Amino acid sequence: MSIYLQDIPLNKAQSRLEAALKDANLWRLLDVEEILLNEHALGRILAKPIWAKISSPHYHSSAMDGFALHASITEGALQTAPLSLAYGSQTVYVDTGDPLPDWANAVIPIENVEPVDQSEQPDSDARNPYAIRIRAAVPPWSHVRPMGEDMVATQFVLPAGQTLRPVDLGAIAGCGHHVLFVARQPRVAIIPTGSELVPIGQPPKTGQIIEYNSMLLAAQIHAWGGKSTRFSITPDNYEQIKARVLEAAKDHDLILLNAGSSAGSEDFSADVIDSLGEVLVHGVAVRPGHPVIIGMIKAPAGAMHKIPIIGVPGYPVSAAMTGEIFVEPLLARWLGHRAAQPLRIEATLTRKMTSPAGDDDYVRVAVGQVGQRVLAAPLSRGSGVISSLVRADGIVIIPSGSQGLPAGEQVTVRLYRQPRDIKRTIFTVGSHDMTLDIIAQLLAAHDRRLASSNVGSLGGLVALQRGEAHLAGAHLLDPDSGKYNLAYIRQYLPEVPVRVIALVGREQGLLVPRGNPKNLQSLEDLADPKLHFINRQRGAGTRILLDYHLDQLGMNSANIPGYSYEEFTHLNVAAAIASGKADCGLGIAAAAQALDLDFIALFQERYDLIVPKIYYNSDLLDPLWAVLDDPQFKTMVNNLPGYDITVLGKTIAVLE
Amino acid sequence: MSIYLQDIPLNKAQSRLEAALKDANLWRLLDVEEILLNEHALGRILAKPIWAKISSPHYHSSAMDGFALHASITEGALQTAPLSLAYGSQTVYVDTGDPLPDWANAVIPIENVEPVDQSEQPDSDARNPYAIRIRAAVPPWSHVRPMGEDMVATQFVLPAGQTLRPVDLGAIAGCGHHVLFVARQPRVAIIPTGSELVPIGQPPKTGQIIEYNSMLLAAQIHAWGGKSTRFSITPDNYEQIKARVLEAAKDHDLILLNAGSSAGSEDFSADVIDSLGEVLVHGVAVRPGHPVIIGMIKAPAGAMHKIPIIGVPGYPVSAAMTGEIFVEPLLARWLGHRAAQPLRIEATLTRKMTSPAGDDDYVRVAVGQVGQRVLAAPLSRGSGVISSLVRADGIVIIPSGSQGLPAGEQVTVRLYRQPRDIKRTIFTVGSHDMTLDIIAQLLAAHDRRLASSNVGSLGGLVALQRGEAHLAGAHLLDPDSGKYNLAYIRQYLPEVPVRVIALVGREQGLLVPRGNPKNLQSLEDLADPKLHFINRQRGAGTRILLDYHLDQLGMNSANIPGYSYEEFTHLNVAAAIASGKADCGLGIAAAAQALDLDFIALFQERYDLIVPKIYYNSDLLDPLWAVLDDPQFKTMVNNLPGYDITVLGKTIAVLE
Repeated sequence: MSIYLQDIPLNKAQSRLEAALKDANLWRLLDVEEILLNEHALGRILAKPIWAKISSPHYHSSAMDGFALHASITEGALQTAPLSLAYGSQTVYVDTGDPLPDWANAVIPIENVEPVDQSEQPDSDARNPYAIRIRAAVPPWSHVRPMGEDMVATQFVLPAGQTLRPVDLGAIAGCGHHVLFVARQPRVAIIPTGSELVPIGQPPKTGQIIEYNSMLLAAQIHAWGGKSTRFSITPDNYEQIKARVLEAAKDHDLILLNAGSSAGSEDFSADVIDSLGEVLVHGVAVRPGHPVIIGMIKAPAGAMHKIPIIGVPGYPVSAAMTGEIFVEPLLARWLGHRAAQPLRIEATLTRKMTSPAGDDDYVRVAVGQVGQRVLAAPLSRGSGVISSLVRADGIVIIPSGSQGLPAGEQVTVRLYRQPRDIKRTIFTVGSHDMTLDIIAQLLAAHDRRLASSNVGSLGGLVALQRGEAHLAGAHLLDPDSGKYNLAYIRQYLPEVPVRVIALVGREQGLLVPRGNPKNLQSLEDLADPKLHFINRQRGAGTRILLDYHLDQLGMNSANIPGYSYEEFTHLNVAAAIASGKADCGLGIAAAAQALDLDFIALFQERYDLIVPKIYYNSDLLDPLWAVLDDPQFKTMVNNLPGYDITVLGKTIAVLE
Repeated sequence: MSIYLQDIPLNKAQSRLEAALKDANLWRLLDVEEILLNEHALGRILAKPIWAKISSPHYHSSAMDGFALHASITEGALQTAPLSLAYGSQTVYVDTGDPLPDWANAVIPIENVEPVDQSEQPDSDARNPYAIRIRAAVPPWSHVRPMGEDMVATQFVLPAGQTLRPVDLGAIAGCGHHVLFVARQPRVAIIPTGSELVPIGQPPKTGQIIEYNSMLLAAQIHAWGGKSTRFSITPDNYEQIKARVLEAAKDHDLILLNAGSSAGSEDFSADVIDSLGEVLVHGVAVRPGHPVIIGMIKAPAGAMHKIPIIGVPGYPVSAAMTGEIFVEPLLARWLGHRAAQPLRIEATLTRKMTSPAGDDDYVRVAVGQVGQRVLAAPLSRGSGVISSLVRADGIVIIPSGSQGLPAGEQVTVRLYRQPRDIKRTIFTVGSHDMTLDIIAQLLAAHDRRLASSNVGSLGGLVALQRGEAHLAGAHLLDPDSGKYNLAYIRQYLPEVPVRVIALVGREQGLLVPRGNPKNLQSLEDLADPKLHFINRQRGAGTRILLDYHLDQLGMNSANIPGYSYEEFTHLNVAAAIASGKADCGLGIAAAAQALDLDFIALFQERYDLIVPKIYYNSDLLDPLWAVLDDPQFKTMVNNLPGYDITVLGKTIAVLE
């Protein structure tokens, strides 16, 4: 067991994989498969170009319902001098799509002719008159779809590598094909390993982890045009993992061995791959996802060639990024087309990012447009924080060689969403309140997204001041006036006209474990040296509230054990207490209820939305005001414990 | 049978459908379906929001392989003053993901500790030493993933309406769900009707049409999240169509009745719908696709409500556009999400477009970037030309009220492709040559697209002069010098430095039906009044060649029957002759071979590529020169009849 991985640069890892695949004659279109042409060919990738087999139309066809005739006999017809044409000998009726008779070379639409003498033929209809009368000459080939109008036999229709769309299927059928040659879908084995893993649906005990990487990877494989086999969980056992890999090698083109790719005590991937073939790369200088293994398994009995295998790191964000970085381009190569090219957008970084100089660092960001500026706000960088990848609108790559980027830097974002999604995103920064989650849910039905960044109340005001948010949530108590927010707004946003709208009143109090084992009743009790308090971060309204009351009580924060340990949201404070990481914290009742804690109510406070005037009346934010008015919203908030909706939606102040 | 449809404006048609669906309580999320969480949930649409059921991680877990301990016992450790910690009592080994012991609150990574006295414990390994030595203190909670780091129980994770991506599936599993509620996929019946239709795979006879609209519509339905049933072809028979519609109404949410939607003699759709329910709309002022019917079928026995039915026009482009305009938004509504929002791009129209003032006109365009300008070149507007929809990069809508747009107008294009595809598009305008199709095929492997617009040789020079193409193909014989292209380039492009590169030499001659029934041998024979010649358009090199030789022979073009009837490509000229529309035309040997015609060789000519200097050495065009050098390309061209590759790739002139 080696403790250290030897990370190599990403491009070097990629070129080692490419070289090994070239050696094995696997750096190419994998295989061609002949399939029947039907709607299930949608999304398959053409392996051979399509040349028209027959022309379309394959005969001269009428483009209208009307009367076929030879154009020459219409010469001289005028509005004032109509011509009569005998039905049957000089003209016949044709439906749209009907072939022209040999002797005809034009069609007059039915609405441009007058039936003649229908009265003499009582059973005739417009299609079968005694004769027709026309009042204009027609040029040859008018209202005729000439043979080959759409496609001429032998004409080039679609290139190899084309991902088939509905209209492509139509064109292929139209020019006479009924089978087509597409790239075979690569077969990918996904082997989850780990004694601590439990399958989805089985409630995990302490120390157990829900195994979902294999599902995530399988879904990626599917999205990228491959076929996956998800094996069941293999425990951390060298022999069992080896047996599984050998089994998978029999009938797959690629093996993804998930977790065990690092160099820990139960990381067997490298040894297994080494024993069955060769480890080409162990460790790539990319974050998240550096403990990647790339190897080749010897050709199993009966197989033609070696099988590539990727040891995928266990953290879900690392696993997903390994898929994007290594698996997608490989599948694209095997399918004979280009990997998806993410849209790129230029944006301004909202805060400083540091990065290890040796690594390509893939930073998840939320992207929103505030005023004229497109902003990229870095999200959590933890490899275990899959929710950050869910929230991410894109990725900013800090290349190796760089130690980071300053706030305000222009960066290129590889988008996960459409630019339109960015334009319908409301960027809210500031204090976290649970009603924001409810707003986010209800806004989805209004074609808006709420991207909220929880940086505390003061952080929200600073963001507004910098023009980096459409609104901010705050509950900042002014010690002098005993009022909320207004004094801080005057101080931090002296130049920005804003409207202050009350969202909710809410109770703040001590969150403690069920039963309140330490019997805490007031802030004074926090000075107990055997207690572990968990605090909120500087600038959070709850922190300011705490400091205010400590001050009133003449208490010194230095005497509160845990005062310096910070969490960024009420729910995280509650989680810290629920897990035993701390004995108590200050927070809202809803957070206590969410994590099944007890709540000792201490104070009532108001939580406001602060909205710059320029955004208050905007297409973007109008749906937000509709949500605040929505009775469903009020009911949902009212059902949260400790919430008071009497002020909901009231304008507290308009500051010009 | 009414002959005329009463077209109503598109927005009125849409609101009638919406009103009828609201009446039937069908303007909503159709149904909620509970499914197991696995990779097959990819692409499904959440019908209920996801709130975290458990926290992730659901216990404090080690973020590294290392040693768990209580941070307080590390106080005082320094590089120069290491501390020893007894294994077992003061610290224990933990793998990444393991829960922290109750008494621990930090982890020191294994690479930051020194095992102590391993020699005294010969069977110990790095994970199980006698003691460990550390040389730095650690703060509490370092290298620990606290409970809820990713998601805290009750936290909002994903909104209803979300189309599930791989990472979403991961997050849903990670927060404790194993089933989820998604929108039921709407069931759509597709009923193709028409006595002239034959299924894909059956060679069509004259008058028969390959039925592929049902496949195209089924693929659209699938792409938009629905499930389709393709019925077999029903002949044009009122009773049979009615029976099919009734059958489909039993277990589908929507019926698409394809063709028969106009008012022709065999258009039964309106009558069938009228007899089974109500026709709401017959005719929409939109092109292509105006003969659309929208109706509601009475609730069949056992059903809860009426069934919407759309009479889809028969022309394939009309059918596809009806899908986009009416079906996609309806499915999106039923699925509880937004319809796909096409990317939009601003572009300059390359030529004038006229449009009926009463209609919303959906014009297919090719889009390319030439220099700094993004250009939109209108494609064929025929409703039967599915290949134009395949080639289309986007749609420009000329709204009702406008009679058209002038060349040079700025227009908004709704893109069918990614902007990146536009940037890798080589815009070639001018004469058509079959080698361009081969180039297009080979360029696909070089990450380039060739969009060629066939406007004749002179048209290509004009396009270069206007800055509307990256290159032009031309074979323009100068009567004075007997040389190709140079005189015309000097005349049309006096200000544009260009490079002239020979592509091929090729034979021009008379295309005639197999066996040459009219026994044509030379241009002189074209003066026969009983003959039907088919010409190329003005500005085509072939036309200029013809005129030159007619002049040499002292022949008057007015005496050539058919001289004024034009086709735009060699293949279309050949198709006209193959179908009997004409007796002969001037063209290249390859076109004769393609359509199984005879060829009477008359002249040898050279076909050049004319490339402005600014594009000759460019990333965009470099792959084109690679293709010209490619032996595979040369072989493919050499296999075309009448082609001479001795000049291929030679620079003929560099004109500054």
